Amino acid sequence: MAGNIFGKVFRVTTFGESHGSAVGAVIDGCPAGLEISEDDIQRELDRRRPGQSNITTTRNEKDEVKILSGVFEGKTLGTSIALMVWNRDVESDSYTPIKDLPRPNHADLTYQLKYGFRDYRGGGRSSGRETLARVAAGAIAKKLLSILNVKIIGHTIKIGNVEAEKVAFERLEEAENNAVRCADSKAAETMIKEIERVKEEGDSIGGVVEVVAINIPAGLGEPVFDKLDAELAKGVMSIGSVKGVEIGAGFNVAERKGSENNDEFYYNGEIKTYTNNSGGILGGISNGMPIVIKVAIKPTPSISKPQKTVNLKTYKEETIVIKGRHDPCIVPRVMPVCEAMVAITIADFAIRNGNINPNLVSI
Amino acid sequence: MAGNIFGKVFRVTTFGESHGSAVGAVIDGCPAGLEISEDDIQRELDRRRPGQSNITTTRNEKDEVKILSGVFEGKTLGTSIALMVWNRDVESDSYTPIKDLPRPNHADLTYQLKYGFRDYRGGGRSSGRETLARVAAGAIAKKLLSILNVKIIGHTIKIGNVEAEKVAFERLEEAENNAVRCADSKAAETMIKEIERVKEEGDSIGGVVEVVAINIPAGLGEPVFDKLDAELAKGVMSIGSVKGVEIGAGFNVAERKGSENNDEFYYNGEIKTYTNNSGGILGGISNGMPIVIKVAIKPTPSISKPQKTVNLKTYKEETIVIKGRHDPCIVPRVMPVCEAMVAITIADFAIRNGNINPNLVSI
Amino acid sequence: MAGNIFGKVFRVTTFGESHGSAVGAVIDGCPAGLEISEDDIQRELDRRRPGQSNITTTRNEKDEVKILSGVFEGKTLGTSIALMVWNRDVESDSYTPIKDLPRPNHADLTYQLKYGFRDYRGGGRSSGRETLARVAAGAIAKKLLSILNVKIIGHTIKIGNVEAEKVAFERLEEAENNAVRCADSKAAETMIKEIERVKEEGDSIGGVVEVVAINIPAGLGEPVFDKLDAELAKGVMSIGSVKGVEIGAGFNVAERKGSENNDEFYYNGEIKTYTNNSGGILGGISNGMPIVIKVAIKPTPSISKPQKTVNLKTYKEETIVIKGRHDPCIVPRVMPVCEAMVAITIADFAIRNGNINPNLVSI
Amino acid sequence: MAGNIFGKVFRVTTFGESHGSAVGAVIDGCPAGLEISEDDIQRELDRRRPGQSNITTTRNEKDEVKILSGVFEGKTLGTSIALMVWNRDVESDSYTPIKDLPRPNHADLTYQLKYGFRDYRGGGRSSGRETLARVAAGAIAKKLLSILNVKIIGHTIKIGNVEAEKVAFERLEEAENNAVRCADSKAAETMIKEIERVKEEGDSIGGVVEVVAINIPAGLGEPVFDKLDAELAKGVMSIGSVKGVEIGAGFNVAERKGSENNDEFYYNGEIKTYTNNSGGILGGISNGMPIVIKVAIKPTPSISKPQKTVNLKTYKEETIVIKGRHDPCIVPRVMPVCEAMVAITIADFAIRNGNINPNLVSI
Repeated sequence: MAGNIFGKVFRVTTFGESHGSAVGAVIDGCPAGLEISEDDIQRELDRRRPGQSNITTTRNEKDEVKILSGVFEGKTLGTSIALMVWNRDVESDSYTPIKDLPRPNHADLTYQLKYGFRDYRGGGRSSGRETLARVAAGAIAKKLLSILNVKIIGHTIKIGNVEAEKVAFERLEEAENNAVRCADSKAAETMIKEIERVKEEGDSIGGVVEVVAINIPAGLGEPVFDKLDAELAKGVMSIGSVKGVEIGAGFNVAERKGSENNDEFYYNGEIKTYTNNSGGILGGISNGMPIVIKVAIKPTPSISKPQKTVNLKTYKEETIVIKGRHDPCIVPRVMPVCEAMVAITIADFAIRNGNINPNLVSI
Repeated sequence: MAGNIFGKVFRVTTFGESHGSAVGAVIDGCPAGLEISEDDIQRELDRRRPGQSNITTTRNEKDEVKILSGVFEGKTLGTSIALMVWNRDVESDSYTPIKDLPRPNHADLTYQLKYGFRDYRGGGRSSGRETLARVAAGAIAKKLLSILNVKIIGHTIKIGNVEAEKVAFERLEEAENNAVRCADSKAAETMIKEIERVKEEGDSIGGVVEVVAINIPAGLGEPVFDKLDAELAKGVMSIGSVKGVEIGAGFNVAERKGSENNDEFYYNGEIKTYTNNSGGILGGISNGMPIVIKVAIKPTPSISKPQKTVNLKTYKEETIVIKGRHDPCIVPRVMPVCEAMVAITIADFAIRNGNINPNLVSI
Repeated sequence: MAGNIFGKVFRVTTFGESHGSAVGAVIDGCPAGLEISEDDIQRELDRRRPGQSNITTTRNEKDEVKILSGVFEGKTLGTSIALMVWNRDVESDSYTPIKDLPRPNHADLTYQLKYGFRDYRGGGRSSGRETLARVAAGAIAKKLLSILNVKIIGHTIKIGNVEAEKVAFERLEEAENNAVRCADSKAAETMIKEIERVKEEGDSIGGVVEVVAINIPAGLGEPVFDKLDAELAKGVMSIGSVKGVEIGAGFNVAERKGSENNDEFYYNGEIKTYTNNSGGILGGISNGMPIVIKVAIKPTPSISKPQKTVNLKTYKEETIVIKGRHDPCIVPRVMPVCEAMVAITIADFAIRNGNINPNLVSI
Repeated sequence: MAGNIFGKVFRVTTFGESHGSAVGAVIDGCPAGLEISEDDIQRELDRRRPGQSNITTTRNEKDEVKILSGVFEGKTLGTSIALMVWNRDVESDSYTPIKDLPRPNHADLTYQLKYGFRDYRGGGRSSGRETLARVAAGAIAKKLLSILNVKIIGHTIKIGNVEAEKVAFERLEEAENNAVRCADSKAAETMIKEIERVKEEGDSIGGVVEVVAINIPAGLGEPVFDKLDAELAKGVMSIGSVKGVEIGAGFNVAERKGSENNDEFYYNGEIKTYTNNSGGILGGISNGMPIVIKVAIKPTPSISKPQKTVNLKTYKEETIVIKGRHDPCIVPRVMPVCEAMVAITIADFAIRNGNINPNLVSI
């Protein structure tokens, strides 16, 4: 059983290789009556698009999305929604020389071992380009969640050793104002400089993204296995470069006593907690407080520094120098993907929990 | 769509409330021909059992497992396997006074909000007792994986501020020699003292568990969504007290350059990596190196110190003092559960990938 | 991927071999707040029970059901509901002599080929005894559907060459008044005589059951694959002895013109059809008219007449004479199973479609 | 939870409305290494294509398929395969006048009731045009099954009152030689005349298709719910015009004794049955004999004779006369769809059962 379908009731199937004809998604389970346009989706795709700043890859893709089905007279039909983007600026030639040389920390080796055959051009299906389809589907999930006033905001909190200061929820969207998507504009400058520095070295750098979801209705999440935090963890961990996930206080809980970590209750119209160490989720179910997720993103594995590898045909050890057009820091482009996975996951649970009617919405 | 089923082909359905009649699991998708006995399962349950040491709860449950179906003449039939444990030492009385007082960082509030009705005795379905069924199913997954020589070992690496020294893979199983399940015996002593100290305070403490899986065949994991790391993250994050998951270098990748984080390849009969920052998973597929997962476990929320809460009937703010029998540190008992979720997840992928025949195994 | 789980959101997992310890079901996805008792379930089990009349097997099982979880203070919790019946009157000895002789039209051969190992006692998992778990789960589905006033009624319309006269909906429940469960009491008598006749011959006989579901809300069914009729067909065809399924006019449509088969519309408060050739389903979605399904049930394959078979060890052709306690006509006992599968299927769709809240019902 | 995904491991997601931009399918779970070309798919689409003979609709669609992903250098990659056909010859105008008039035995009414909003042009998603995507996916399933030498052949056995004579398996493919796809060429002539006759009347006619699958390995099917016959029944019953399904002897079993219906065993290298009343399936598992399914197909509901309906806006009763281009008998065009659903179902089980490696095939 392969794994190109995500979600249980808002189900997203994606397809597409980096240098194939097209990349896209089909969504099964979006209710009828939701206003959706190609612009709604394009806006999100543009945030993930290559070439959007000088700290991203220079691959030039407009990534223009086309809705093939499921929308009629500007509204969803309740039928499956197909979304597609043609691949245009494909430079496959730079991959031919390294066809048999698996790139360290890429999926070349494991795809070869698993399938015995692979599209080596630009990483094929294992390319980050695959995430375009997630962002497209996520745009629809976001639109659907807007019915509940749910808002999902990502922002960079760390690049290398540079950490952002804590910023109030209301100001998080300022993250969109700079190339690294950090809401602390001062830290953002230092981060950008750090990225430019490693770029010059032919190297890359990692970081941490925080995704915050607000106005979440209480009750989302399905114990004991399909807990909200469990599916969120799956969702973001399924993104290519992610190596760690924290909910609320995350790994900090290890050093704490119960009396420090417990979120005590108070009442102001509804039951709330003074603190939010639990990140908005108790027993796998949302409690109405903001959901807070931190995501560790590894440095782009494609670097131009020489690295040791093994030839897949000769089994000889060789040195690889990766050319092509790569992001020195993938963090700002992975962020919309993290948001998309969070949006898809929450949309899925909102339908599962009955907050959104599975057949028909009216806004 | 509720969420009491885990796995896609090795599917585990669990049932049972803490103070109900019984807790159990049904496994759909275990191949025929696997030798399995109640002893195989009991051994694992005993590692999770309450009352196993003086740093765990004093609830006295023998947790004797019974196999109800799916096994004939000592071997699995390929049919669904039902496992059950009766609940015996139930002290429901201590819960009546706090029936309407949600305990901070417990699921009382969210279950009440979601289902409008709950079994308040001992946390009902949201109790840690639910994980017994995971461990029982995990014992079968471990037995199944033993066909491939896969071994799954958990050990505590941190309790509060006490961190264990790094221990070689070969010595990890020594973790079983002490109550806190830490392979560094010296750190274990300090950890136990720390737990005893917080216990006296009526408080609790968190920690970090590492689970290592060795002899993993390359090829496990199903991109782009059902990646091995994604499902592992879901599996462990679905355990009640878990707030963070790391694969390989985890959050450390944020501070690294690509040249530091990439695992270069060499060849000695098969292609291996010098380092294992990727934690044995590339592109969501196992590469044959050990799988390394770190899991952050929060301090037990049940503490006897007074805490603020809100009455579910009157909406008045009140103070709660939790009595009953609780673990001052749940880490050593959560560990077998983490191992179980890792085992179930890997077993699922081993069948999905064709490493284990779905119908019939012979050992 | 094995197949012991039925349904998408009201998910029923069953377990149990005919001569093992127990048979049972776990239901994931029944909303909280539904009043349910062991009596509700027992009533349905008694309709399927062996030994209920002199035209059924003499195996003497009381089939007393026990609810293990998911119900508290007489109401469902929204958690998984485990139901169990112990096997008592097990006569395994009669099966030892025919251990290696597959019985014609039984699953002995195919289980042996698929799993390489089987519980030969009483057919093991392939025994009709497995359907007990379906009926138990179906009882809960029926109770859940009673919220919508949905009623599901099965009745025998044919045994061998004996056909029942058409009976009005209101009188269908009279089928319970005789051993063969035929609403036409006169035909019932002839049917019973026919069954007694074939029983004396050491033979068996087939029949047709009709299941009618009334008060069905419009809108149930999920095109284009999970259509209501498609899942109903799967549900009843998954019952051991079923070889054919018809919706509405069924195979009669082949001989008709469109002008004869189309159900024209009229209006009396809601849009209805004059005729019901479509059996209450259009485009895979319920239209509010009664759902009508016909199910062909084969003659019990266990007969005492000598039959040709092949020894699984020696591959020699041999003659088999089946002893043990068998139903000369399984139709009246399969009927509650058909009803159960219809009930489970419709309950599943009623939640999927939002007619029943997935978390909480109040009656 | 919507229903546009079919299959458990060979999973087909389809999309597309009749008069939207495109219709297509995405296949998740086709192993790598399978040679597949657009021609392989086109060949099957041409059998379903409108306008292929003078007894089919005159809508003129070439239905040219494009593979968007999942195939590289002529072979599958093990990644998701996207297939697409643009809609070209769209005549939406004829539907505007009947926008509010649900056509009898069409899904207009039920879509309106379920989704509250629908694409009324050509039936939208409920159009038979949706089945194009099934046939495209089925072509890949057939190619995959060719590895096991499995062959799936459909042929018409009845149109109205005209029944075909029984034809030997070897001659079934001759059905392709006439417009009605009947292997009995003499009956075919009569059938065609009958269709032409009802066409002149502005009426339509139903029929029965038989699908035979040969060289099926024993062991396919997953009891107790995902039995081979159960999933086949679901698969064909999910096709728009199907109202009945029979496996093997089907409804004839009702009239038979066990001694007449049982298939006795003999041995000639493998264990076979003299007769095949069970249609190749015992206990839900294939036994190696040919699988035989009969499918009842209703007369096309679109007829030009006046019919009674109810206006969806005014709730007034009106008369509808359906114009547009319709098939007087849909049987010969539904047949490739039946074959496709059978192929997809069997491919799914062949992977589930381990007969086909889930990752990689080599032919």
